[in-house]
Amino acid sequence: MLTLRHLAIDTVRENVAFLNRRCTRYHVEDFLGLGRVEVRNDGRSLLAVLNIVDDDTIVGPDEIGLSAPAFRRLGLAAGSAVHLVPPTPPESFELVRAKVGGAALDDAQLAAIIRDVTDLRYSKIEIAAFLIACASFMTTAEVLGLTRAMIAAGTRLSWDGLDGLGGLPRTIADKHCIGGIPGNRTSMIVVPIVAAHGLPIPKTSSRAITSPAGTADTMEVLANVDIPVERMQALVREAKGCLVWGGHVRLSPADDILISVERPLAIDTREQLVASILSKKVAAGSTHLLIDIPVGPSAKIRNAGEAVRLRKLFEHVGDRLGLTLEVAVTDGSQPVGRGIGPVLEARDVMAVLRNDPAAPADLRERALLLAGRILEFDPAVRGGAGCSRARNLLESGAALATMERIIAMQGPPPAVATLGTLVAEVAAPADGVVASLDCYRLARIARLAGAPNDKGAGIDLLRKVGERVRRGEPLYRIHAGTNADFTFAQAFAADDSGVVVG
Amino acid sequence: MLTLRHLAIDTVRENVAFLNRRCTRYHVEDFLGLGRVEVRNDGRSLLAVLNIVDDDTIVGPDEIGLSAPAFRRLGLAAGSAVHLVPPTPPESFELVRAKVGGAALDDAQLAAIIRDVTDLRYSKIEIAAFLIACASFMTTAEVLGLTRAMIAAGTRLSWDGLDGLGGLPRTIADKHCIGGIPGNRTSMIVVPIVAAHGLPIPKTSSRAITSPAGTADTMEVLANVDIPVERMQALVREAKGCLVWGGHVRLSPADDILISVERPLAIDTREQLVASILSKKVAAGSTHLLIDIPVGPSAKIRNAGEAVRLRKLFEHVGDRLGLTLEVAVTDGSQPVGRGIGPVLEARDVMAVLRNDPAAPADLRERALLLAGRILEFDPAVRGGAGCSRARNLLESGAALATMERIIAMQGPPPAVATLGTLVAEVAAPADGVVASLDCYRLARIARLAGAPNDKGAGIDLLRKVGERVRRGEPLYRIHAGTNADFTFAQAFAADDSGVVVG
Repeated sequence: MLTLRHLAIDTVRENVAFLNRRCTRYHVEDFLGLGRVEVRNDGRSLLAVLNIVDDDTIVGPDEIGLSAPAFRRLGLAAGSAVHLVPPTPPESFELVRAKVGGAALDDAQLAAIIRDVTDLRYSKIEIAAFLIACASFMTTAEVLGLTRAMIAAGTRLSWDGLDGLGGLPRTIADKHCIGGIPGNRTSMIVVPIVAAHGLPIPKTSSRAITSPAGTADTMEVLANVDIPVERMQALVREAKGCLVWGGHVRLSPADDILISVERPLAIDTREQLVASILSKKVAAGSTHLLIDIPVGPSAKIRNAGEAVRLRKLFEHVGDRLGLTLEVAVTDGSQPVGRGIGPVLEARDVMAVLRNDPAAPADLRERALLLAGRILEFDPAVRGGAGCSRARNLLESGAALATMERIIAMQGPPPAVATLGTLVAEVAAPADGVVASLDCYRLARIARLAGAPNDKGAGIDLLRKVGERVRRGEPLYRIHAGTNADFTFAQAFAADDSGVVVG
Repeated sequence: MLTLRHLAIDTVRENVAFLNRRCTRYHVEDFLGLGRVEVRNDGRSLLAVLNIVDDDTIVGPDEIGLSAPAFRRLGLAAGSAVHLVPPTPPESFELVRAKVGGAALDDAQLAAIIRDVTDLRYSKIEIAAFLIACASFMTTAEVLGLTRAMIAAGTRLSWDGLDGLGGLPRTIADKHCIGGIPGNRTSMIVVPIVAAHGLPIPKTSSRAITSPAGTADTMEVLANVDIPVERMQALVREAKGCLVWGGHVRLSPADDILISVERPLAIDTREQLVASILSKKVAAGSTHLLIDIPVGPSAKIRNAGEAVRLRKLFEHVGDRLGLTLEVAVTDGSQPVGRGIGPVLEARDVMAVLRNDPAAPADLRERALLLAGRILEFDPAVRGGAGCSRARNLLESGAALATMERIIAMQGPPPAVATLGTLVAEVAAPADGVVASLDCYRLARIARLAGAPNDKGAGIDLLRKVGERVRRGEPLYRIHAGTNADFTFAQAFAADDSGVVVG
């Protein structure tokens, strides 16, 4: 037996055990080749990846250390006696091996895999194996099965008690953009328009991980977004809409785990994207969903053919899950609006809601288009009339009033964010017309400037595609809050500004 | 900048960095989503998987800790100032993504991947992605390209100065068994026979990882196997053969890295097996190679069809690498010899070499068959005459004399190993004939008894398939050295002995 020790090392979604090389009770070599151990006691058992330690102050020879999440999951007190046994890999991994060998998995088999993934019985390399097997080949039936399995492995939000539109089956609207376009903060305009119409739209959003801002980051400039589930439900009953961070809702924990491995691998497949998004939307209780697919040379989806294939897969799986699903294929050729980064994007959003004549027209028109499509989920809105209804709700100030109400109800942001005061202008290298803006490159510069952690950092675009510019005139401004970030971003922009003037 | 700290944590083939959550210089969230950081200074750079620490005694807020192998690879002194940048994944991973998408890779592309793998620029999940992409689909040209890339990424042993057989181009013989059959220690008989004939056969072997004994473990009962490369080369010049542990020869470091991820996933494909074995053999300087493929219901290869496909792939790739390669498909229906575990297997081997009438006939005949095939690589040995030449070298005592010379030259083992004195007999449940012995199950029991770390532990088979047995008579004996191992092995054997009496 070894003595259990808690190590304050956060290995997030992987269980990691630390064993002293001079372990008094076990031969570390017995476990090293397999890379894992099973830690046991009192009917509890935990599968953990093994690290060997040569420092007795971290783990002594008669101890086994567990990383913080692994310790929590095992659920035994520090100092407990535990024993180690050779690891029994999760049984469902046999199915992953079959899939690697070319088999198609049925719903029950996918459910078994997803259950073990959710219970953290898979190591990261096993998860990678499953993801790559799926990325190599996946039938449409498997995409549906995977989506169902991920829904079943999480909690599902209930919207009982929420009034629908007069006399109809309950409608919970939602929208989702597959991402990749900086400044594309339409949700913050669509939600108040749709809620102002009376259609419930409880929007949960993510924070940015690789982009300069997620909707949650930008909304946090204006209001608190860190809101528990019950409070969010109350809020939607009241105001019909909300714009909160999705982190409190354990909607699709399996998807979160899969994504944590998918992201560093940067392997995005259509199949995994559809399963990921639809599992979260169904779990969120959405019944009517609009998916925004921007298409452009530096967007996630590069051409119309890819967009069609993705749309068809969304429709196929969505239909079978009982969702009313619409797909909008939109222009993803350049950033939307002027600002990139939370404070700058919040400025653009509020300008649109306030009907400010200087508000970015592309952001406004795009939001109206999407809101119109959602409003047409309401049987009372005639086909084709959604957009004008949306425009009416925006121009009348109803959307702004709803947004202000949502902001008031969500409460003030945790900190006041202001625009970064270190400012550099990037100038046009020649006279001409802006030929292209590289979404990926500009996002990278905004991120180097400090966004989204530094909410006031980012890029303020002064010229968009098709606009004339003279040599030496500014194309955009970089805003930063610290000298280090400022220097990084400037150096990166000097190397390649992301703007082609032709 | 952060201060570099060495952590005595052995993360083996993966670089791991530890950052304090309250890091004073960087936002840990900036790196967490990507799972990695790049640590830099003075033109040195290291890509490492990131762990977050909440204990200042492990890593302080102004420090970054590197696991022992990562620290060594970065090559900076503890206390050095380093900075962190968002990780640039290895460029060659783009090719892995293409492969996942269905592309076939050419030699240059595979070489780029293998170089980055060898330089430890791939994380374990990236390696898993590459392995699974290869396991899903791999052309024969890719197997050849992968093998060549792995050869190029390591050192290649030179046998210049070694006398060949009279007047012929140098012949360096070698054999390899794909494994899975307990007790199959033919190398320790084949090497002295072939060396006694005068054909150089420098045999490097592995230690057991998941089996109860590797050839290196069993040879270590008789002699030192931990021998540096130059000493091994001198030894082969002298005695024509050796039986050493391959750990000193950095023959195919890429393969070692791939295997460290492949093994926990237990994904064995024909393609990876061929690339792995042939890359090591070519790197070892072998020119003439015999591959032993045992076939049986509990072996790695289950039927003749699989064996043929594997044989053809070995031949195809071997031919193109300039190897003279022969494949022997052998009986893998039950363990070979009587003993399973280092001391017991060494006993069987020496009994064969001593022409002891009680020596296991199956081990002797199998070794003679394989040795005969290798001897026929000598153009002077007439087709079909290899086996009788081998028998002659064994029966004359020439093979034993050569083995004794090899043992004397390699020197005494690091410790004297004796048979485990805790002994339990597993009895036949009924009168009858032994219908089957389960290789996998018996190997597992021998391992639980303590083999191979406890060299004296294992199983001594008293009945083989086809032999008559009466109820209550012993089928085999379990030998162990410690009570805990003894109890484990007995309990496992009581559950299912691995022997069917019908």
